[in-house]
Amino acid sequence: MPEYNVAVVGATGAVGQEILKVLAERRFPVKNLKLLATSRSAGKQMVFRGETHTVEETRPESFAGMDFALFAGGAASKEFGPGVAARGCVVIDNSSHFRLDPQVPLVVPEVNPEDVKWHRGIIANPNCSTIIMVVPLKPVKDAAGIRRVVVSTYQAVSGAGKEAIDELADQTRTVLNGGEYTPKVFPYQIAFNLIPHIDVFQEMDYTKEEWKMVKETRKILHDENMAITATTVRVPVYRSHSESINIETEKKLTAAGVKELLARFPGVVVMDEPAAKKYPMPLYCSDRDEVFVGRIREDNSVDCGLNLWVVADQLRKGAATNAVQIAGLVVQYGCLPGGGR
Amino acid sequence: MPEYNVAVVGATGAVGQEILKVLAERRFPVKNLKLLATSRSAGKQMVFRGETHTVEETRPESFAGMDFALFAGGAASKEFGPGVAARGCVVIDNSSHFRLDPQVPLVVPEVNPEDVKWHRGIIANPNCSTIIMVVPLKPVKDAAGIRRVVVSTYQAVSGAGKEAIDELADQTRTVLNGGEYTPKVFPYQIAFNLIPHIDVFQEMDYTKEEWKMVKETRKILHDENMAITATTVRVPVYRSHSESINIETEKKLTAAGVKELLARFPGVVVMDEPAAKKYPMPLYCSDRDEVFVGRIREDNSVDCGLNLWVVADQLRKGAATNAVQIAGLVVQYGCLPGGGR
Repeated sequence: MPEYNVAVVGATGAVGQEILKVLAERRFPVKNLKLLATSRSAGKQMVFRGETHTVEETRPESFAGMDFALFAGGAASKEFGPGVAARGCVVIDNSSHFRLDPQVPLVVPEVNPEDVKWHRGIIANPNCSTIIMVVPLKPVKDAAGIRRVVVSTYQAVSGAGKEAIDELADQTRTVLNGGEYTPKVFPYQIAFNLIPHIDVFQEMDYTKEEWKMVKETRKILHDENMAITATTVRVPVYRSHSESINIETEKKLTAAGVKELLARFPGVVVMDEPAAKKYPMPLYCSDRDEVFVGRIREDNSVDCGLNLWVVADQLRKGAATNAVQIAGLVVQYGCLPGGGR
Repeated sequence: MPEYNVAVVGATGAVGQEILKVLAERRFPVKNLKLLATSRSAGKQMVFRGETHTVEETRPESFAGMDFALFAGGAASKEFGPGVAARGCVVIDNSSHFRLDPQVPLVVPEVNPEDVKWHRGIIANPNCSTIIMVVPLKPVKDAAGIRRVVVSTYQAVSGAGKEAIDELADQTRTVLNGGEYTPKVFPYQIAFNLIPHIDVFQEMDYTKEEWKMVKETRKILHDENMAITATTVRVPVYRSHSESINIETEKKLTAAGVKELLARFPGVVVMDEPAAKKYPMPLYCSDRDEVFVGRIREDNSVDCGLNLWVVADQLRKGAATNAVQIAGLVVQYGCLPGGGR
């Protein structure tokens, strides 16, 4: 079985660390691993499959001989991505920089795997909240068509990186002890609070996060006029995003029918037994690769309405797992430069 | 100015304590105050307007000579309410027991004050999440008609009483210190978690809380077929409920128009300056009587769509303040038994 040289850029961050875990767990055929980060993190040591690796500062020449470069996100993608792709290394990018570029496929492997095939060196990993939403939307769309989606999110702090996780813990401890804590990562106290503001404000007073959920979903589902509206909210949860999704379909689906559709769909776990108090919760869906769906209900406020409550680990399926799955598809489809060796 | 004898039933609970505060703050004309509770709390002392009162166990004869009985919620309403009302004492009830009774007005003073006039001794105070939602819905409905509402809630623990507040604090501290905490009030850990389950499950797998938001809203807005769907979720916030509300109106409204409508409406504070990071958050809307509305956006996924983010203190406007306002309306309209003295 062929093996590949893999660079992970931003290896020390929350998503980067998770990429290493997922590469190991999924036994991705890694020949040589290169861990890259900013100069601040260069020299750190990290363990992959029992071997210690030293983190190097990302430079154009770092990618020589690499087959895959998995970018965890941030400014490095824009700076290094196109050059790396031009060298013949496949870039799988978790930043938002290339996602809406018509030359770049935006892929969720359960939803639009075939889009991997037309890549020109860069494949974009979608926004975490978007990935978590499109997985259950796909089988519903295929079965009944989607007329409109209204989504409200409940997003964990880890979507904002490792510092955000520390901020929630330290701030909560300080607040419980009656102290004062000046927020660094979030604009306001997040402990025991909600912040209805993720990423910057853009047109029509929607945030960039809200626009990502609209525009990326349309691209992934190949439906450029799909009617979607989103409200995104940060909640004091460490990990795993939750979403309340209302869907209007073209054809009527029963709740039982939706449960069946979802249960059959890869990457989805239906967790929906109200009488047994079984429904997805972020605390219990973390460190898992699947998207958990519960509270599946028909919505009679429209002819063909549905409500879903969806939870998934945004560092796993919302980022690292999805990226490693994309790399797997590139191998499977043999669409590495040179035809996959 | 006439003064009234007022009984507060369930005085020692989270809502009961708040009723005492609001009665004092709003200078409700209280002649004699009687504090009632279960036998467990009898004998406790509480201060009202500088005077200490002793809590008594609720009995039918406790209400002799009372003009108003404010029930904070729970089983006492059903047990004592009708008898108390038959004695000529006006019952303002915060439990869910009488809310959908066609003989009982369900009132939010900014929305349907006139309904107070046809009371027959009992006036019901709506569910907290419902009150918070109908206040901004009312001016929108009057201006443009409402075709459909999709709401997702983010509900604070104090909606489940004082023990719930203690559980969040104690559990959070325990979890931060690496310990284990067996939940008592909530079915699962609420610290750093979300629970998409409030009150019991009922028909179509909606919770009773979700049905309350549907049925009570219809009654308050006098629109018995109004299309509403709700998903209610408990969040690790001490106080103030938040709601992401999507509204489809009959006529098109601009975001600017909605801001103006809401700013003019009594009991609403528009807090919506994205560039200045001004939007409502539960931590900063607590201990306030108003309903705060922000993130006001047109929603182009339908012809006449709107998104609102609404926050209010559910112990104040969602319970105590609304109840005391109702008592004020009874006085104002002179609709006490005997015509208001």
